[in-house]
Parts: sequence; C-alpha cells; structure tokens
Amino acid sequence: MLNFSEQPHKRKNLLTGEYILVSPHRSKRPWQGQVEDLTPDGRPQYDPKCYLCPGNSRADGTVNPDYKDSFVFINDFSALLEDTSMERFDEENLLIAESERGICKVISFSPRHDLTLPEMEIEAIQAVVDLWQCEFRELSQYEWIKYIQIFENKGSIMGCSNPHPHGQIWAQSSIPVEITKEDVQQKRYFEKTGRTLLQDYVSLERKKNERIIIDNTHFVAVVPFWAAWPYETMIVSKRAIGTILEFTAEEKADLAKTLQELTIRYDNIFKTSFPYSAGMHQAPVNSGDQSGWHWHMHFYPPLLRSATVKKFMVGYEMLANPQRDITPEQAANTLKQQDTVHYKQKTT
Amino acid sequence: MLNFSEQPHKRKNLLTGEYILVSPHRSKRPWQGQVEDLTPDGRPQYDPKCYLCPGNSRADGTVNPDYKDSFVFINDFSALLEDTSMERFDEENLLIAESERGICKVISFSPRHDLTLPEMEIEAIQAVVDLWQCEFRELSQYEWIKYIQIFENKGSIMGCSNPHPHGQIWAQSSIPVEITKEDVQQKRYFEKTGRTLLQDYVSLERKKNERIIIDNTHFVAVVPFWAAWPYETMIVSKRAIGTILEFTAEEKADLAKTLQELTIRYDNIFKTSFPYSAGMHQAPVNSGDQSGWHWHMHFYPPLLRSATVKKFMVGYEMLANPQRDITPEQAANTLKQQDTVHYKQKTT
Ligand SMILES: O=P(O)(O)O[C@H]1O[C@H](CO)[C@@H](O)[C@H](O)[C@H]1O
Ligand SMILES: O=P(O)(O)O[C@H]1O[C@H](CO)[C@@H](O)[C@H](O)[C@H]1O
Repeated sequence: MLNFSEQPHKRKNLLTGEYILVSPHRSKRPWQGQVEDLTPDGRPQYDPKCYLCPGNSRADGTVNPDYKDSFVFINDFSALLEDTSMERFDEENLLIAESERGICKVISFSPRHDLTLPEMEIEAIQAVVDLWQCEFRELSQYEWIKYIQIFENKGSIMGCSNPHPHGQIWAQSSIPVEITKEDVQQKRYFEKTGRTLLQDYVSLERKKNERIIIDNTHFVAVVPFWAAWPYETMIVSKRAIGTILEFTAEEKADLAKTLQELTIRYDNIFKTSFPYSAGMHQAPVNSGDQSGWHWHMHFYPPLLRSATVKKFMVGYEMLANPQRDITPEQAANTLKQQDTVHYKQKTT
Repeated sequence: MLNFSEQPHKRKNLLTGEYILVSPHRSKRPWQGQVEDLTPDGRPQYDPKCYLCPGNSRADGTVNPDYKDSFVFINDFSALLEDTSMERFDEENLLIAESERGICKVISFSPRHDLTLPEMEIEAIQAVVDLWQCEFRELSQYEWIKYIQIFENKGSIMGCSNPHPHGQIWAQSSIPVEITKEDVQQKRYFEKTGRTLLQDYVSLERKKNERIIIDNTHFVAVVPFWAAWPYETMIVSKRAIGTILEFTAEEKADLAKTLQELTIRYDNIFKTSFPYSAGMHQAPVNSGDQSGWHWHMHFYPPLLRSATVKKFMVGYEMLANPQRDITPEQAANTLKQQDTVHYKQKTT
C-alpha cells in the first residue's frame, strides 16, 4: 500500500492530465532562505493616493465615481487591447506568432481601502459575485471573445500592486494554455461517461470526506487530491454547469458564503492576510459545444510554514515538475481545524 | 505585418508546443508593488555556519572534506529517496498516484563562500562542468533512473536557502512533466525531418542574428523567440547530441566559457548578483531510443525592471497563460550591450 504521508510519490491532476510530485517526509527541512516582509496591518479606510478609492483620479485622469459597493473599469495598463489588427507570423515553421486581441478590466471589490474579501460583509461579497456575472454576460456578447479569465491576486507577495481589495478580468480572442488542457481532459471524460469529470470527482471526495473543507447546498471547497501549492483549494459547483452565467440567485448567495468562509479559514491559519492568486475556470465562450465543462475556482496560495515563509516553485519545479512538501491531506486537516470567525473579529 | 514591439501577440514555444503572451506596450506600467530586498554584498570567503564550506559539518553530522574545487553529496533533505517501495494507487480512476524513487544531490561549485559562477575563475567553472558530466555518467548507471535534472537556484529571490554557490541534481524513476512535453515536440520534428528541432532553430536564429547573445565554436546562447521570463535565455550545443555525456573536452571548455560570459552579462544588467533558476534539459536515460533530443540549458531569471523589481507569474499566468511585458528582442538587445567583464572587476 502506498503510504501517502511517508513515501515520495506523484499524483495525477485530473484537470490537466499532468502529475505533481509529493515529498511528505521533507517538511522537516530547516529553512534558512528568504523570509517575506509582513504586510503592515491597519490601512486607512480611504487613501487619497489609491487609484481605486472612490472619488480619486486614475493614471489617465479619469475620476472614480463615489461608488457604494463594487466598481469596474478598463485597466489603464491593459496587457491586451481591443483595438489591434489580427495578423499571423510564420518563418520556416520555427518562429510562429499571432496577434491576440482582448479586454482587461479591474474590479474594485469595495469602496473601503482597508478590507479584503474575508473581512467584507456578506452582502458586499454578494455584490462582487453579481458583478462578475454581469461582466461575464457583457463580455461574452463580443463574438470575437473566446475566453474570459476572472481572477484576483491578493497580497504583495502575489504581485498585487495595490492593497485596495480588487480583482481582474482578462477576456481574449483565443483560448489560453491552461484552459486548453482542462478542455481536453473534461471533454474526454464527458464523451466516455456522459457525466462531467468534476461531478464524479466531487461525489467521490464527498464520500471519502478527507479533503473537503466546505460542503453546503450548492458548492464544495476541497483540497484537490493533486494540489500543488501548500494550501491549494478548489471551489466546485454541485450543479454541472459551464459558466457563472447559469448561476441562480440562490447559487450566487451560496458562492458568496463559500468565498467568505474559505478566505476566513485561510486568514486564520497564520493569523495574517493570507496571500493567493485565485480565479475561475469556465467554459470558453462563442466556441461551439462546451459540454463536459464544469465551473470551478482555483485558489493558489504560496505560504508554507508561516506568514513569512512561502513555497518556492523554482529550479526543479520550473524545469521538470511541480513539487510539494506537506501532503494535501495535512493541508486539508489544518484548514478544517480553523475557526469560521475571522481572527480580527474575535474578542477574548 | 505583425509589429512585435507594438501589438499584443502570442508566440509558440517550439519545445513545449505551448504559447506565451507578449504585451510589448505594457512596459510603461508604473510599479507600486513589492520591491525585493537587495541581497547584501560582501560575504566572507569562509562562513563557519555554512553547511557547504570546507571542513564544516552538515545537518546529519557529516564533516565536509577540505575540498579544493567542487564537491558533491546526497542532499540531507532530499525530496526523493532511493529507498522507497514502488506502489500504485487508483481509486475509481479519479484518485491516481504512484510512488516515485530518486536520488537528490547537492553540488558546491567552489570552496569559496563568497563567489558565484560569474565571479569564479574559468578553471573552477570547468571543474563544475566536469563534475556534472561525471555525476550524469554515474547516475545513469542505475537502470531504474530514467531522468536526471541538473539545475541551480541562484539568489534568495529564487528560493535558494544558502548563498554559498551551489547547484542540485535530482535523478528519478519517471519522466517529469516538462521533459515529456519537450520529448513529444522534439521527437515529432525529428521523425518528420531527420534533423533535431534545435539544430534548425539555431541555424535560423544565427541567420537572423537578432536574439543571439553568444556564438562560439560549440555553443550559442540565445533569447528564445518564445521566452517567457523577462531575460530568459537558452544555451544550445551546436552538435545535435542528447546529453552532457557526449561532450568532448573541447566542448566542456567552451561550455564553461559560455556560462561565464552569460552570467557576467546578467550581473552587469542591473549591477547586482542576477538571480535565476537554470538547468539542463537532456535526453531521458535507460529509456530506449532518444533520437530527436538536443542538449540545452534554460535560464529563467525573474528580474524585470531593476535589481529589486521582478516579474510576477501570478493570477492570469497561473490560471491561464504565461505573459511577458518587454519583448524577447528588447531583452536580447540589453544583454548584447553588456560588457563581458564583470562590473565588480572593473576599475575606473
Ligand atoms: O532544495 P532547496 O534549495 O532547499 O529548495 C529550493 O529548491 C527546490 C528545488 O527547486 C524547491 O523545491 C524548493 O521549494 C526551493 O526552496
Ligand atoms: O495587473 P497587475 O496587478 O498590475 O499585475 C499583476 O498581475 C498580472 C496578471 O496576473 C501579472 O501579469 C503581473 O505580473 C502582476 O504583477
């Protein structure tokens, strides 16, 4: 019998078809490497120099409205542009390129500069979910848009350049690498079984109840069996639907609750604002048959040992294979043990 | 005509078959995000607390010999173990795992605690290359070993936990994800043309001479057309050989020179010890026909704007697609303009 908590092994990521390496015995390794700065706590509710706060002006001179919940605008430094001609380049089949067209938006989650998702009121989180759905609907109406990536970089350790809570949406004219992988695996499974891959995966995880963190009416949050990042999780809808567009009001309310509980558990692990990159994976749009696709949201948090020591996905991981030290089951245990009340809210 | 320096576009990585996104117009974006600590210069030549310095003792009590050039030993905190039973785990074809067996070694590049590759004498770098070849030969003699990853994490920003110059070798019983991708692409090309992919790619790059940084008798160093990291480069052997085992004495000497020049150019860009993860990609061993494989070494350095501001491969990049701001041609220009004398060696 393979002993997950003692033997080095690899596990298959069902969504990408790729393996990750698990070295459970390695967590005892001492750490003399880089220690991150702790982001100072206690930001003001309003920062006159923040380009996301209500009433402030942005890089291009536009003045933000005096918004009350969430607020969206085109990224002043978009990585993709709507206005670009579509060309191809091919030299001897060795230098291959093509233009990419897109729209990049920024979503401020709250007028409050000092809050993050786990500290926001449930109604405010719900407003973010509503806005995501609206934006997805609007962007998918451009026929040239094929894929819409909704995501958040939280914390300066994750390259976030402004502590005001916000996320991004990049919508583009072709289907990105990671989505192509998940497309292949999900379609293959659906063609074989008539069920979505995540439907069956979630059923099995619920039966085993080892890695499930949250299980409510419409969603589960689980540490995937194949998680690569130390505290990686995935939120999956119980209904096998392809995009956020199909979510009912009830499902949206439940997603808001799930997001709140999961991010509170994260913050509580190290009593710190837990950094991560998170984002939804959804069916491509304007691209024909999308059966097999099942809405889910990945959380990739880098912290490993403490609020200041992260996992580095570097040499071996970049050149060969993602690798992790603690097992997904150990991470799930830690997440399950956390309180669902935010540590800052607690008075003892 | 696609204008590489103005239009957002994607480029195909010939070795993986995957695309990367280029946003040339985006380098003007202001940066208010994380700024790295500058690693303090001026380490002692010998550090009594360093587990790599000659004569010191390591975690397990072993005392390092009084070595004169490079020195290799089994990693005291190996991610892979030689002694593990080979098992498989499969639950409903949804939870899939198998044990992985391996050997992890550490190579100290020099007895001197204060040096890095770009500051070492050419003879000392040559000794490292010799040791790589010896180790590769020795490890490939274990029939159960299928792939040998030689790499270096340089700088604390790349997760390196000890500033003493060193690299690592992880040898293992199966073929990792990144190698499998390159295997597929290189074999496919070879079957179609009878030449290796990198042979033809290097010829074309030499003809164009836009992205070539170093071109000597036996090697080129090039910013790949599809580079993802800001100053990513690749060293490729001119002879189409699969592994370091086949290098002649002359080739090894030339590789040492190429490594020295490339890393000096890196250090000179921002007048800092330039961090990177670097490693060779070579044909799998003990795995049958390996035609199509062509030895090369990748350099993935994170710095983008200065000695303290790096590129973050986060939200969009993790969830969707690698993305870069400056173009590979701009990066190549900067690298070409650098002096081949190390900035610390210069007296003005
Ligand atoms: O082996 P080290 O230097 O202790 O550790 C470093 O390199 C390893 C191999 O790339 C990574 O798995 C670790 O995350 C990183 O911190
Ligand atoms: O868009 P931002 O927050 O300025 O930038 C951040 O997120 C982007 C999307 O993941 C990345 O490309 C950048 O490297 C990162 O710093």
